Amino acid sequence: MNHVVVMAGGSGTRFWPESRVRRSKQFLDLTGRGTMIQETIRRLFPLLRKENVWVVAGEKDAPHLSSRVLGIPARNILLEPEGKNTAPAVALAVSRIVRRDPDAVIAAAPADHAVSDVRAFRSVLGKGLRVARRTGRFVTLGIPPTHPATGYGYIERGEPFAGGDGTVFTVRRFTEKPSLAAARRFVKSGRFSWNSGIFLFRADTFRDRLSRHLPEVHVAMEEAFRSFGRKEFPGKLRAAYRRFPSISVDYGILENDKGILVIPAKFGWSDLGTWRSLHEFLGKPGENVTFGNVLLADCRNTLVRSDRGLLAVVGMEDVIVVRSGEAVLICPRSRSEEVKRVAEEVRKKIPSLA
Amino acid sequence: MNHVVVMAGGSGTRFWPESRVRRSKQFLDLTGRGTMIQETIRRLFPLLRKENVWVVAGEKDAPHLSSRVLGIPARNILLEPEGKNTAPAVALAVSRIVRRDPDAVIAAAPADHAVSDVRAFRSVLGKGLRVARRTGRFVTLGIPPTHPATGYGYIERGEPFAGGDGTVFTVRRFTEKPSLAAARRFVKSGRFSWNSGIFLFRADTFRDRLSRHLPEVHVAMEEAFRSFGRKEFPGKLRAAYRRFPSISVDYGILENDKGILVIPAKFGWSDLGTWRSLHEFLGKPGENVTFGNVLLADCRNTLVRSDRGLLAVVGMEDVIVVRSGEAVLICPRSRSEEVKRVAEEVRKKIPSLA
Repeated sequence: MNHVVVMAGGSGTRFWPESRVRRSKQFLDLTGRGTMIQETIRRLFPLLRKENVWVVAGEKDAPHLSSRVLGIPARNILLEPEGKNTAPAVALAVSRIVRRDPDAVIAAAPADHAVSDVRAFRSVLGKGLRVARRTGRFVTLGIPPTHPATGYGYIERGEPFAGGDGTVFTVRRFTEKPSLAAARRFVKSGRFSWNSGIFLFRADTFRDRLSRHLPEVHVAMEEAFRSFGRKEFPGKLRAAYRRFPSISVDYGILENDKGILVIPAKFGWSDLGTWRSLHEFLGKPGENVTFGNVLLADCRNTLVRSDRGLLAVVGMEDVIVVRSGEAVLICPRSRSEEVKRVAEEVRKKIPSLA
Repeated sequence: MNHVVVMAGGSGTRFWPESRVRRSKQFLDLTGRGTMIQETIRRLFPLLRKENVWVVAGEKDAPHLSSRVLGIPARNILLEPEGKNTAPAVALAVSRIVRRDPDAVIAAAPADHAVSDVRAFRSVLGKGLRVARRTGRFVTLGIPPTHPATGYGYIERGEPFAGGDGTVFTVRRFTEKPSLAAARRFVKSGRFSWNSGIFLFRADTFRDRLSRHLPEVHVAMEEAFRSFGRKEFPGKLRAAYRRFPSISVDYGILENDKGILVIPAKFGWSDLGTWRSLHEFLGKPGENVTFGNVLLADCRNTLVRSDRGLLAVVGMEDVIVVRSGEAVLICPRSRSEEVKRVAEEVRKKIPSLA
C-alpha cells in the first residue's frame, strides 16, 4: 500500500519571532489555514488513508503533536530521541512501516512546505508512487524554476525515462545551492528543476540503498528494531541515534545512487523559506497581507502580522512586520534572509525570546 | 516676586501610542531625562524658588501630578474642572497668585516644550521678567526660525524697544500657522520669530488686559475667587468654567493688545510637536535614537522605543517605531504628522488603546 512519511524534525529560525527554539516552523500557522504540518497532512487525503500517514518528529516537539489535531492515529507519530537530519528519520519510519506493510511504497515529504494547487499535487504524488512501485527506483518531484533562486537545490534531468509517459526523466545530477550565475544557466537551460524535497520509493528499495550507502545507520536501526514493541525499545533507539551521523537522504543516498528519476511538475509549491516567500505565496505582487490585530494606512506590499494588542503601520512599503508574544520584528522584504541572524543574536542576548 | 505658571492642560495625540487619552504628552518621559513637565519645572531652578512655581492642569490629570515628583508644594498645583485653553488657565493662576503676592511678575510657559540650552533659557527668562516688571507690558519670547516651518505661529517684530538694550523689540503682529510660501517670506525677511508660547507679564497687567479683552472670564473668575479658601470654592469654580469660552491667551489677549514686546532668543527650543521633532531634538542627523528593549541591525536615522519585550529592527532607514503597552506604531519619519489621525482612528475602533 501507499504511505506518506511527513518529515517534521526541522528546527528553523527564519520565521522569528513566530518560530522559536521550542516552536519550529512546521508547527506555525503561517497561512491562516492551520499549521504547516496540519496542511501537509490534510492535502494527502483522500489520496491516502489516515493509517498510512506517518509523522517523524523530535521528542522535544511532542507537545505540538496531538494525534487528534493532526488527524492520524497516535501510533503513527514516531518520535526521534534527537534530530539527525532526514536519513535517520526516514530510516526510522521505513523500519516501522515494513513491520506492518512489507510491500509499502512510501513518499517522504517535508512538513513545512506549502502547496497551492492541491489537486495537481495529489495527481503527481499518485503518479510518483506508481512509478516508484513499478520501477523500484527512487523518484523525486522537481519544480520547474520560475527564477534563478540560489537558496534551493537543483535537479538536472537527463533523458525521458523509457518506461514512463514522457513526464518522467532520469536524473543526471543533484546540485546544492548554486551561485547566481550557475542558477541563471540552470534556468536558461530548461533541464533543471528545483528540488522539492519530496521523494518516493519502495520500502525494500530504501532499505537496500540505506544498507549500501549508509550501512552504519541501517545496521544500528535494525538492531534497535529487534526489540520493537518491548520496553527496551526506546533505550535501544536512543543508543542507536547517539551513534548516527547527522545526514540527509539527499546527501547520504540520492546523490550517491544511480537510476534516480525525476518528475517535474507544477503544483504551486513553495518551501516558504522566509517571511518574504510567505508574502509572495499569500498575496499578489504589491498587496498587503495582514493577520490579526493590525491597522494599516496607505501601505503597499507589506506583510503585517500581530497576535495581540494593536500594530499600526502608516505609509510603509515593502516591509515585513511581525509581532508574536513579547517580540516584534521589522525588516524590509528584501532582507528577510537576515531574520535567521537576528534570531541567533536574540538567542545569545535574550534566550527567553529566542 | 517672580513666578512661573506651567500650563499643563493640553491633551495631545501626536505621540501615540505613548500619549493616550489619559496620559498627555506633558506627562511622558520622551527624552529619557524625566517627564516633560518635570523637565519644564526643573529648568526654572535656581532662577525661582519652588514656592513660586505653579502648575495649572486638568482635574483628570491629577494622578500624574504628584507634588513630590514635581518638586513644588501641593498647594501650587491648580486643577481646572475642565480644559478651556490657556486664557482661563492663566487667569486661574493669576487670581491665585495675587492673593499671596499682589506684585507678582509672572512667566507662563507650556509644560510640554523642550529646551537644550538651559543656561541661555534662564538668562532670557530672567531678562523677560525684568522687562515685564519695568514696562508693565506683555513680553513674548521669540525663537529665531531655522526653516520655514508651517506648524508654528510667527511673531513679526517692529522697532527695537526704546527702553531696552537692543535685544527687545516691539511686536508688529502675530501670525497663526502660515502657508509654506508665507513661511518662506517670513524666514527670509529676518523680522520674524517663532512663537515659543512663553509670555511674561505683571499680574496687574494681565488682570487689566483680561478685564478689557475677555471681561466674561475676568468677572466670573473673580466671582469664584470671592469664595477662595472656603468649601464652596470648587463648586463656584466649576460653575465659572462651564461658562468660559475655550480661548487661548494668544488669540484672546495678545493679538488684540497694543504695546507687546518680543525678545528673540536662541535656547535650543523645540515644541517636540511630533516623533520626528523628538528624533531631531535628541540625535544628530542620520543617527539612530533608541530607548528601552530594542535590537537594531544596520539601521539609519531611526527613532525606536520599546517599553517591553523586544523590538528587533533590521535594515530600516528614516522610520519611527514605538511600542507602548499593547500598541505598536511604525511610520516613516516624514509622516509623523499623521500619527494624530491614527490615534483618532484607534479611538474610534479600539478605545482601550487610544
